[in-house]
Amino acid sequence: MEKMRLRRSRHEPVQDRGHRTRRKVLLAARKILVRRGLQAARVEEITNLARVGYGTFYKYFRNKQDVLEAVMEEVFHQLNDAGFPAQVEVSRLEDQIREGITNYLKAYYRNREVLLALQPASLMSPRMRRFISDMREKDVQWMVDGLTKLSEQGWRIRGNPEVFSVAMLHTAEAAAQDWITRRQHLKLEEVAETLCEIWSCTILASRPGQRPVAALAVEARADNLRKR
Amino acid sequence: MEKMRLRRSRHEPVQDRGHRTRRKVLLAARKILVRRGLQAARVEEITNLARVGYGTFYKYFRNKQDVLEAVMEEVFHQLNDAGFPAQVEVSRLEDQIREGITNYLKAYYRNREVLLALQPASLMSPRMRRFISDMREKDVQWMVDGLTKLSEQGWRIRGNPEVFSVAMLHTAEAAAQDWITRRQHLKLEEVAETLCEIWSCTILASRPGQRPVAALAVEARADNLRKR
Repeated sequence: MEKMRLRRSRHEPVQDRGHRTRRKVLLAARKILVRRGLQAARVEEITNLARVGYGTFYKYFRNKQDVLEAVMEEVFHQLNDAGFPAQVEVSRLEDQIREGITNYLKAYYRNREVLLALQPASLMSPRMRRFISDMREKDVQWMVDGLTKLSEQGWRIRGNPEVFSVAMLHTAEAAAQDWITRRQHLKLEEVAETLCEIWSCTILASRPGQRPVAALAVEARADNLRKR
Repeated sequence: MEKMRLRRSRHEPVQDRGHRTRRKVLLAARKILVRRGLQAARVEEITNLARVGYGTFYKYFRNKQDVLEAVMEEVFHQLNDAGFPAQVEVSRLEDQIREGITNYLKAYYRNREVLLALQPASLMSPRMRRFISDMREKDVQWMVDGLTKLSEQGWRIRGNPEVFSVAMLHTAEAAAQDWITRRQHLKLEEVAETLCEIWSCTILASRPGQRPVAALAVEARADNLRKR
């Protein structure tokens, strides 16, 4: 019974010292997993690097898969914290979008080795897929709230707010992933600038006082026809 | 030697009859894999459903993983064929975007069972990840060519064309996946409408004769400040 309780609380050590030890193991595991991959990584190598006893690993993690998931969860939390402002402020939305995109790309770049090496393996785990899916949904709902706030102030963002948020949030994720895998030669600023442009066109252009973009397109077309 | 040659050509039967048989096996494999998953699927069940001999399977596929990849490749080809027009026509770009998005979503919905059941397992294969990555890159280059054509005609789409294309193509993929996994209650039209809106704001609004959106945003801000 005692043992069971111990096992259950394994993931959240209550004492500071426990926190520090778990952190050390996690950092070492991150390095070893990136270096060796999930299959070849050995728990002994992780505990050696962390300078803790072999058994200590199993105080905090069930197995290698478990620690892999903890590493990836931490990465995703870091990306999220970097990208989203604590509070959306309509008056400085443009700056917030620019800062959010830039900081997100910076965090993505800092974590690129882990993302490249461990993301495919981590996605095989149903728990991990659920974690990512839940996290994305929280982001979507966060953005939907922001859009609701904007539309209460007269902004005209059209379409379904949830679908809109899903699509827009993925522009950043997709561009970041593509950047670190295929287009490493690009400067962060260039990637950020392009994303900002997309976010400006779709969100900032819906500010009250702007003519809707679709209307503009129709007018321009009429104009072109007249010119012919 | 003879056997080796046979093995090599396995994937591309030259005769029509071979094509038809491979097709039958592939269709049966698709059904069984979706029903049972990769682990539990049995080759015998596939060949029974296809009404071919057990050995016939191995004429065309190395193993279950091989046929899984063939199924997924076919799905991705279908999605691509549905979404992209053979030729971009600037004069009816708005309609082409709308048709492309709608057809892509329809194809995604038709293939939803396969995508939900088999995509995670297929992504564990490095060959599959390479296939998807190469296919996406072809799409990106296709879109970059389209954007070049537009900019030669005076359209002002700003930022890096490759990053822009990556981000925009992912809006459709992400919204489609989210739709079939989390928001099945939405109508296809609603998802399509939202995506069209995003594509309109970013592409159609850059038509010659439009004022750049960023400039509009700056003007509106100045206007708001004056009103205060």
